[in-house]
Amino acid sequence: MSTDNNDYKNLFRAQEKELLEEFFSFLRFQSISADPTKRPELQSCAAWLEKKLIESGFQVELWDKKETPIVFATHTDAGSSKPTLLLYNHYDVQPVDPLNLWHSDPFAPRKEGNLVYARGAQDNKGQCFYVLTALTLYLKKNKKFPINIKWIVEGEEESGSTGLAKILKEKSKELESDYLMVVDLGMRKSDLPAITLGTRGLTSMEIDVQGPKSDLHSGSNGGLSYNPIHAITALLSSLRDERGTIKVPGFYDTVITPKTEEISKINFDFNVQEFEEHTGQPPTGGEQKFSPLERAWLRPTIEINGIGGGYQGPGGKTIIPAHAHAKISCRLVPNQDPKEIAALIKKYLESQAPSGVQVKVTIHDGMGKPVRTNIDSKIVKALEAACTEVWGKEPEYILEGASIPIVSELSETIDTEIALFGLGLQTDNIHSPNECFGWDRIEKGFLTICKTIDLLAT
Amino acid sequence: MSTDNNDYKNLFRAQEKELLEEFFSFLRFQSISADPTKRPELQSCAAWLEKKLIESGFQVELWDKKETPIVFATHTDAGSSKPTLLLYNHYDVQPVDPLNLWHSDPFAPRKEGNLVYARGAQDNKGQCFYVLTALTLYLKKNKKFPINIKWIVEGEEESGSTGLAKILKEKSKELESDYLMVVDLGMRKSDLPAITLGTRGLTSMEIDVQGPKSDLHSGSNGGLSYNPIHAITALLSSLRDERGTIKVPGFYDTVITPKTEEISKINFDFNVQEFEEHTGQPPTGGEQKFSPLERAWLRPTIEINGIGGGYQGPGGKTIIPAHAHAKISCRLVPNQDPKEIAALIKKYLESQAPSGVQVKVTIHDGMGKPVRTNIDSKIVKALEAACTEVWGKEPEYILEGASIPIVSELSETIDTEIALFGLGLQTDNIHSPNECFGWDRIEKGFLTICKTIDLLAT
Repeated sequence: MSTDNNDYKNLFRAQEKELLEEFFSFLRFQSISADPTKRPELQSCAAWLEKKLIESGFQVELWDKKETPIVFATHTDAGSSKPTLLLYNHYDVQPVDPLNLWHSDPFAPRKEGNLVYARGAQDNKGQCFYVLTALTLYLKKNKKFPINIKWIVEGEEESGSTGLAKILKEKSKELESDYLMVVDLGMRKSDLPAITLGTRGLTSMEIDVQGPKSDLHSGSNGGLSYNPIHAITALLSSLRDERGTIKVPGFYDTVITPKTEEISKINFDFNVQEFEEHTGQPPTGGEQKFSPLERAWLRPTIEINGIGGGYQGPGGKTIIPAHAHAKISCRLVPNQDPKEIAALIKKYLESQAPSGVQVKVTIHDGMGKPVRTNIDSKIVKALEAACTEVWGKEPEYILEGASIPIVSELSETIDTEIALFGLGLQTDNIHSPNECFGWDRIEKGFLTICKTIDLLAT
Repeated sequence: MSTDNNDYKNLFRAQEKELLEEFFSFLRFQSISADPTKRPELQSCAAWLEKKLIESGFQVELWDKKETPIVFATHTDAGSSKPTLLLYNHYDVQPVDPLNLWHSDPFAPRKEGNLVYARGAQDNKGQCFYVLTALTLYLKKNKKFPINIKWIVEGEEESGSTGLAKILKEKSKELESDYLMVVDLGMRKSDLPAITLGTRGLTSMEIDVQGPKSDLHSGSNGGLSYNPIHAITALLSSLRDERGTIKVPGFYDTVITPKTEEISKINFDFNVQEFEEHTGQPPTGGEQKFSPLERAWLRPTIEINGIGGGYQGPGGKTIIPAHAHAKISCRLVPNQDPKEIAALIKKYLESQAPSGVQVKVTIHDGMGKPVRTNIDSKIVKALEAACTEVWGKEPEYILEGASIPIVSELSETIDTEIALFGLGLQTDNIHSPNECFGWDRIEKGFLTICKTIDLLAT
């Protein structure tokens, strides 16, 4: 099999220059799904993928074409006696602000040494690109696939996959597969592949606090008007105690303690120094009574993603502002239900409103349930073997603190074995300024996908 | 004396149209002292005042001309045997945001019925304008003043009067006077004049909380990174307990309980319904154990004037932000010292920083001590008589929850009797969108100033 691997490697290297150009083209689309003004960029990006795939010999459909298109590509010549692999990626990206902290335009990709910098360079266009490259070059070399291939690339993952979630049931026949491989995960060291055995769930909401009907002078009204920023800071700080334990009644009620057997294969080692170097902080977030990776992988969180209210300009302005607002999101673990948790938080915050202000919590769409996969499934075993060949060492098993909400929905719609895979590193700055991805990982990802396809046919 | 009053009234009404035009010209200057880019507007506004006063026969100096000019006008032909009245106003205004809540351009004044709408229409250009009109028309009519007149109009009141504060000692000779009349106050009903016997002091600061060195993904890092918005909301909510009592150690230590005799002349009646109509809120702010006007007049406050951090755009962004910040200001009562209080808050907040974030408090310039005036002074008695004549009823005595920081500095620099006066109403929306002032009050203010000058000469 090592011959194969070298064949694939030679195939990749023979057109490395063209591939980098293609990757840059893909990264130039400003496919920010959270920004309604970027809809045309999302549509152009989907059309670009569609074109590439059709040229390679795939059947391609664009679902939800007039909104945010979902690219669905199939190559099923292997026939019904062969298994089907469904791959999942997304082509949308996070917003770019704070823009001033980027060292170069987030949509003008550049390569510096091994690293390619751009919004989406990793999440998820980088990982999407090595799947694209694997599928197209595999077909170019072998003329056919030994198994049936389906690939779904959506454009709303960063906004909760609402479009895809809506049509899942309707498309369940098209999505039917034996194996689902979600390529949006990470590893902990660039020289050690990792297979992820689960992700956390997600739920999010906004809180709006209305004080006086317009900004008031803080001198004449200070002591009379209830300041909505006093209210929102009190409400938000009441969500957690000083040891990081979440105080919303019922929040932990459905959390299940994982079985020793289940977590014994997972590597919980955590490199404090590396975290501090990367973030500039010691790992002091979350519930103090747990170890760092228990907090990030096995425990739920509540984070405030943004807050605003009153005067934020230069100098001072002595007002009691009319309004304050914040964005909140939670990471959830088995068996917390996103809808139930959101409802608990909404109820709690609204019930705590002090007299004089109005508190309104709006629950966002795009929730996701926590996911756990089966280490003994054929897809995970194939992936393990592929990784071992590409890296020359066995992968480690980890969990992921982030969420891919659509995975649980997919797994509820189609009866399939799931593998969670990806080559993201903590230093890739995803969702942050100066996002990047290693070009070497594009190659390794490409090799792993090709090898996994071969192994699933055996 | 009522003849005199009618004479002044006729004088005003004879050129009402020209006066309104002049007022509009004054309001058009975008003299926002908090905004460094508006310096030229402040300079043009000061030059406009200078020109008007020179044309009327005043000696005018511009102090701090290259920065934010202070207009100092004198007319001292009455001679050293006569007393000197020093008047104080300011020509700078508050910032205009949130601009989208204004019904018209804040610097394109318009008159609707009796009300003139513009930023500064009341605070303090409206009040400044009736003083200007009184001084110029009095002189036009009488050719001279029966007492010596000095007028100081500064351009940094809304930014803490830093320029004036700096040169006060140096200018103490020029500012020497028997009476100081500060025309930047208010009344509670349009048909009942008020004399203010004291203002609260002011101190302000900014708090900056640094979490990770750049925004992090809230999934992979949630439970590891300490969110600076968690930190800032906990810190800010720890400033007060649930009954509004301020918890900063030492905050109340220097507060003196006013003597019964001192407060017996003050009208503490508070119209809850009027407050609710104006603000859309019940009066639930401040320390619950005191009555509304005790809270607004006799008790100190701590307000959060603005807060920001993380993602505030449309939709969601699942980050742990790098940074959060807030602007804080306190209203102070005798004998709290602004510097001491600011230092207490800074020490308290910085000492409460949780491990994992950095907390920095920056104390702003432009503090002000609380002020109390003497109800038995000649200037207050003259003002009382003038009000009684102009309104046909005795004024009420009140306190003011707002601050005019420079007043305490002036009173410490020159030995003078102080009166605090003004015709502001709660419904004028000062520091807020759609600021306005009644044209009838321009006339009444004009009459009161003319009459007070006459009475001080007797």
